[in-house]
Amino acid sequence: MPKSALLFFDDTSRNLDLRYFCGFEVHDAFIALQVGRKRIGVLNALEFGRALKESTFDQIIPLEELTAAAQAAGIASPAPVDHIAVLAKKLKITGFEVPETFPSHLLVKLVERDFDIQVIDGAVFPGREIKTDAEAKAIREGNRCASAGFTAAETMLRAAEIKGRRLVLDGKTLTSERVRTAIQTACIAAGGFPADTIVAGGDQGCDPHCRGSGPLRPHDLIIIDIFPRMFKTGYWGDMTRTYLRGTANDVQRDLVDAVAKAQKAALAKVKAGVFADAVHAESNRVFDELGYETKRTPTGAVGFFHGTGHGLGLEIHEAPRLGSVHRKLRKGTVVTVEPGLYYPGLGGCRIEDVVQVTAAKPKALSKHSYVWEL
Amino acid sequence: MPKSALLFFDDTSRNLDLRYFCGFEVHDAFIALQVGRKRIGVLNALEFGRALKESTFDQIIPLEELTAAAQAAGIASPAPVDHIAVLAKKLKITGFEVPETFPSHLLVKLVERDFDIQVIDGAVFPGREIKTDAEAKAIREGNRCASAGFTAAETMLRAAEIKGRRLVLDGKTLTSERVRTAIQTACIAAGGFPADTIVAGGDQGCDPHCRGSGPLRPHDLIIIDIFPRMFKTGYWGDMTRTYLRGTANDVQRDLVDAVAKAQKAALAKVKAGVFADAVHAESNRVFDELGYETKRTPTGAVGFFHGTGHGLGLEIHEAPRLGSVHRKLRKGTVVTVEPGLYYPGLGGCRIEDVVQVTAAKPKALSKHSYVWEL
Repeated sequence: MPKSALLFFDDTSRNLDLRYFCGFEVHDAFIALQVGRKRIGVLNALEFGRALKESTFDQIIPLEELTAAAQAAGIASPAPVDHIAVLAKKLKITGFEVPETFPSHLLVKLVERDFDIQVIDGAVFPGREIKTDAEAKAIREGNRCASAGFTAAETMLRAAEIKGRRLVLDGKTLTSERVRTAIQTACIAAGGFPADTIVAGGDQGCDPHCRGSGPLRPHDLIIIDIFPRMFKTGYWGDMTRTYLRGTANDVQRDLVDAVAKAQKAALAKVKAGVFADAVHAESNRVFDELGYETKRTPTGAVGFFHGTGHGLGLEIHEAPRLGSVHRKLRKGTVVTVEPGLYYPGLGGCRIEDVVQVTAAKPKALSKHSYVWEL
Repeated sequence: MPKSALLFFDDTSRNLDLRYFCGFEVHDAFIALQVGRKRIGVLNALEFGRALKESTFDQIIPLEELTAAAQAAGIASPAPVDHIAVLAKKLKITGFEVPETFPSHLLVKLVERDFDIQVIDGAVFPGREIKTDAEAKAIREGNRCASAGFTAAETMLRAAEIKGRRLVLDGKTLTSERVRTAIQTACIAAGGFPADTIVAGGDQGCDPHCRGSGPLRPHDLIIIDIFPRMFKTGYWGDMTRTYLRGTANDVQRDLVDAVAKAQKAALAKVKAGVFADAVHAESNRVFDELGYETKRTPTGAVGFFHGTGHGLGLEIHEAPRLGSVHRKLRKGTVVTVEPGLYYPGLGGCRIEDVVQVTAAKPKALSKHSYVWEL
């Protein structure tokens, strides 16, 4: 009977299914496979010792062994396809299931060698979406780390003096860069790192993926989005708060209030068995009812033009998305809930928390004050 | 005549060729193509505005336009293959060249739609290996950032008191974690982040990819490998120094001396037109002559069991590798030179610097003291 195996060829920073599968980190592409329930890793001398100690592989084969076998068969400089062929022969494997992101060049070469290849349609490990208690805890730690970042940012914003159109701290203009450095430093001390921390004031905040730069202005909305990856576990936190140093006007207050309402309404919808797009529809409903319009413009879009949230775990963005996909939420899934509104001239606001889906009220995995007028 | 385009479907943190191609960062997979010399990006509303401002695309097409066109053709929920098909029809494209890492599932679907697909064998942009002056400068900045990290580590090691088998600083045991946090904090202030900084003392240093944890011991070799990615440019620095706090013995001194000699010899070999494996052979020659044996063991390997270096740029590990590959070095290439020796019981030593290949002596892109007995 033909025998098939699940095959990876990637590194664990690019392929988080592989990271989930092997339980440790390898920064260069390597061969890993699952035969029946057995997990096999092929590692070179540089990674071999660490793999023995840190990985969840049942068997670790030195790459050098496969190289020697291929060379004995007359291949002077074996490529990954040759290593895989040696291994397949040894294990009597005639076909492979590969993930969607499996590299095309290797797919083509394996097909040329007459292996029967099946590209998996969708998730390699659908169970990865359901977080264990240990995973939920790791994500909660990630959000604790983010919260430490917000505290650092709030301390700076509160301490800053308002001098005309400037915020001044320790005699120097307060900038996005300075606040970001303080956040990053606080997060490191809390065990994670938020590389792309967003500190975007005024119109910069209207571009949800703009990191923010230059002077922060008093009386402007400032979006701070902190998503640290924890050093120990590799899991992420992801939270957003919107602040204002100075005095908010009524239009700003209404905007923040609308986003808070949309988040609350969307959170109330999150429950096992509910459709992901129904949660997103809920944020949209609140914004529609309050009269906040969403439309495309020549330079982007205004209103609410991103999803309500996304799965969170070993990847910062993973399944399920809380957007237009009509798919039921499953118990144990961890998602962000982060509606936002963006209007150049007025500014942007986004509020983001993380919850785990249950059969009833979702379980909060993030916690930080919502006080925003500083 | 059939018309073909270069096609990407990836995000810029996974695919650095795409990052090189489009000049900005996008953290979710998107469609990008090159038709003739024209660079086209397909971005959704969330990324569109930033793409206009930050990217090097000649044309940016809103994803929503392709979705609408596919829906008009009867596809209710268009997938990436549908978006690509709409675009191909519009641009009269019948085939695609795709990178080696192009996702297999999309390759299969494009072939099913009768597109003529060519998987590029090797580098998409061979020119990426040759660094411009601006790129060399960005890498030098990365190493300046690393150097700031070494200074922070040296300050801590020097200030630590030796109390029996412990190093004590500010009343607390000095650990790998504390030194790593200080390095990370210093690097952030210098504009980059070294996520996986290695601070590995004693036998931990014998596993070249072990990050290091727990108390650092006096009189032990401590390997510190700092590779920050710069926030502004996305380019990396990568440097290693080996330290010892306390008093080194003769065996340790000989080991460090051997590594320094091997690095010097390998550096002297680096030159345009020289084969990459000849540089690696040079480190091996020095170690052989000095009697340092390399061999595999049941738990890993001892001696010198990794390459002498690797290309450095937008990726921490990129072409060319200074290992067993028989390929000529090209002028303008940037490589690390980092021989090392690892013997459990004695400890590990690695010294790493970065140079740019020229027609004569390589140009140093890293600079930091080699004083190691602190």
